Amino acid sequence: MAATPSTEPGRHVVVVGGGFGGLQAARGLRSADVRVTLVDRRNFHLFQPLAYQVATGELSAVEITTPLRQILRRQKNARVILAEVKAFDLDRRVVVLDELPNGARSLELPYDTLVVAGGSAYSYFGHDEWAPFAPELKSLEGALELRARLLTAFEAAEVETNEDDRRAWLTFVVVGAGPTGVEMAGQIAELARDTLRRDFHDIDTGTARVLLIEAADRVLTSFPTRLSRRAARALEKLGVTPMLQTTVVGVTADAVELMAADGTHHKVKTRSVVWAAGVTASSLAGLLASAIGAETDRAGRVLVEPDLSLPGHPEVFAAGDMVAIRGAASLPGVAPVAMQQGRSIAKVIRTGERKPFHYVDKGNLATIGRSHAVAEIKGLQLSGFLAWLTWLGVHLVYLIGFQNRLLVLLRWMFSYVTRGRGARIIQHSGTTPPRKP
Amino acid sequence: MAATPSTEPGRHVVVVGGGFGGLQAARGLRSADVRVTLVDRRNFHLFQPLAYQVATGELSAVEITTPLRQILRRQKNARVILAEVKAFDLDRRVVVLDELPNGARSLELPYDTLVVAGGSAYSYFGHDEWAPFAPELKSLEGALELRARLLTAFEAAEVETNEDDRRAWLTFVVVGAGPTGVEMAGQIAELARDTLRRDFHDIDTGTARVLLIEAADRVLTSFPTRLSRRAARALEKLGVTPMLQTTVVGVTADAVELMAADGTHHKVKTRSVVWAAGVTASSLAGLLASAIGAETDRAGRVLVEPDLSLPGHPEVFAAGDMVAIRGAASLPGVAPVAMQQGRSIAKVIRTGERKPFHYVDKGNLATIGRSHAVAEIKGLQLSGFLAWLTWLGVHLVYLIGFQNRLLVLLRWMFSYVTRGRGARIIQHSGTTPPRKP
Repeated sequence: MAATPSTEPGRHVVVVGGGFGGLQAARGLRSADVRVTLVDRRNFHLFQPLAYQVATGELSAVEITTPLRQILRRQKNARVILAEVKAFDLDRRVVVLDELPNGARSLELPYDTLVVAGGSAYSYFGHDEWAPFAPELKSLEGALELRARLLTAFEAAEVETNEDDRRAWLTFVVVGAGPTGVEMAGQIAELARDTLRRDFHDIDTGTARVLLIEAADRVLTSFPTRLSRRAARALEKLGVTPMLQTTVVGVTADAVELMAADGTHHKVKTRSVVWAAGVTASSLAGLLASAIGAETDRAGRVLVEPDLSLPGHPEVFAAGDMVAIRGAASLPGVAPVAMQQGRSIAKVIRTGERKPFHYVDKGNLATIGRSHAVAEIKGLQLSGFLAWLTWLGVHLVYLIGFQNRLLVLLRWMFSYVTRGRGARIIQHSGTTPPRKP
Repeated sequence: MAATPSTEPGRHVVVVGGGFGGLQAARGLRSADVRVTLVDRRNFHLFQPLAYQVATGELSAVEITTPLRQILRRQKNARVILAEVKAFDLDRRVVVLDELPNGARSLELPYDTLVVAGGSAYSYFGHDEWAPFAPELKSLEGALELRARLLTAFEAAEVETNEDDRRAWLTFVVVGAGPTGVEMAGQIAELARDTLRRDFHDIDTGTARVLLIEAADRVLTSFPTRLSRRAARALEKLGVTPMLQTTVVGVTADAVELMAADGTHHKVKTRSVVWAAGVTASSLAGLLASAIGAETDRAGRVLVEPDLSLPGHPEVFAAGDMVAIRGAASLPGVAPVAMQQGRSIAKVIRTGERKPFHYVDKGNLATIGRSHAVAEIKGLQLSGFLAWLTWLGVHLVYLIGFQNRLLVLLRWMFSYVTRGRGARIIQHSGTTPPRKP
């Protein structure tokens, strides 16, 4: 290995993670004189901001995903490996891979430069035992699982004769009132009040309760207070009940236990809990941190230098939700941050100039059901239809692939006009087919 | 119960199965003075003839499915129950349901008239131990499982360093050269030669072998010999190797064992086997037969009267792949037969006139890759581009829902122009989300 690998031509850049950050890093190196290897355990990029629409049957899984190989097919210097990362050996400069598609348990991938962008997941505040009863809304698997459960809950209510149990089946609890939780709660309410209303005979799906649980004193805490208030009003109009200053202290198969600000406990019978709270960094952050003998912060993030490199390792970079920048304010866990960081890392690798990363906040958007959204764009606060059109345009532009854009636009047009949702199928596992004909 | 329930107004018709036959029966009763209850264990109708296109990443699961409730939402006299059928009690006139969505293990559903249309599945010639290594291509679950396996096989070949193993990963075996097997083999060849060719760096996906195994002496035995020959030639041009007069005598995780007409055995190393052979009727046929003390035929079908009613039970009807009509020639296991039988049953129930069922054969179609198909329409034999356009039109017309039709048409246009396949994601189970972030 040369002493200054970052200027040697033809060097090997390994990018771990095909999310927003990793993809931008890989694509930012397309005309650089390097070889790029992108490693991911999925063969697709997931457009996470729309995962909640898969969960409510608005979109299909395929429409918010793009195969990584397709994204990089025109990039001559890039290749893709499907695998899990088991370890980083920073001294020997190798990434140890696991669970390879051919069944191999281990493969060492040498690098000259390493970029790690593993993203984040929702955590259960240390209560992993809640997970089976409250699928999370960040992965495609979680979204598909939620879709099956939400739709099954209505089916269950239809055949349930006990009034109490029926009410539990028609009670939906969304935990976390960030953009994902707010959007999900709004969609469940619309699903119940518009889409499914004429589908069922023995129940009135419009009587479904949707509770949105938030520990803070307002929804969408990353937005200005005025927009939080507007969002809360729009949610209430849709039939969502925001429960603020309330924390979840227990989740079981048929109930959630809540604690109000005054310390009183309160049980809600429900069969459907959606988890969209407690972000924690990818375990790759922990692997990186321990590789340099450091610790992660409370959210599991690894501390990086202002140029996004690992302390003491200028040849290793990290991006996205899994990093905290030394001496800088915490950045929101949104796609634009990860994308800008990925691009910034690519530039440092390309030019060798170690400029500190600077986040350009282009705005903040959240939609609340049909034709309503809140937006803050460079200080300008918008809410209502115009904000919704902005939301729609921005999401279509950032969705990868012309085909997906067109199909998603068509689905949205259909559901806007018909109030229907085309993807409401209860899809069972693709890995364990039921054999009984 | 009245002595002649089939003429009493407001009587209850239970239809079991939301496939082609069951749906036509239910919809054929929309203006009849009856109550209709459709029972299915899935909440959607599957357009089975295109399931193989989900398996190769051409279409998404959602695009070939329609929620049953959506199909019947405008039919005021119809309702839907999601459940498995456990038993038929013909004396008491009740269907016993199981695995209800609310977790209940049993529900008795009384009927005045019963229609059973459970369809069929592929059987493994009595070798159910082959199933884990050779997913079938009739259910949505099978198609999704196959999609994940086929795409993973290419990923495995890319990282495999042993030349022998790599060749095994790039060998695809399709068992059964009926329309489904032929279409699937053609699509795998196109996937390898066109779609994926530029996606991989270390392998040439165009070297993939696709073997199509058929016990008979020609492919597409339900077509005239001339069209079989043309189809075989078209398959070979695509890179498929039809192996005729060959039977499968063993399937393991890494090989299939074949027996040629001369009795010689022959092992092919492969990691991907697609099962599309050995049709067997739904287990509901067996339940019906044993309810009247009869036996099913060799293909597991129940014998019905010419009006499709069960012998001795004029109030019970059965339709589709799971029935054989007394004294009539065996009908092909295709959607038009099931649909016409469903409509015929609805008419008998509506009018009370017990006319024998008569199948009107409108033709036979099978496509072999991009812009090639064979068709036999009222004696007219077509092959090539015109047959392909016919195939395309017919499938779009019969696909349920304007939205699905438009989206499928768009996907086909995209893949025709770009030779791409938009839905090539390896989608893991929607029921067991991987928790590791």
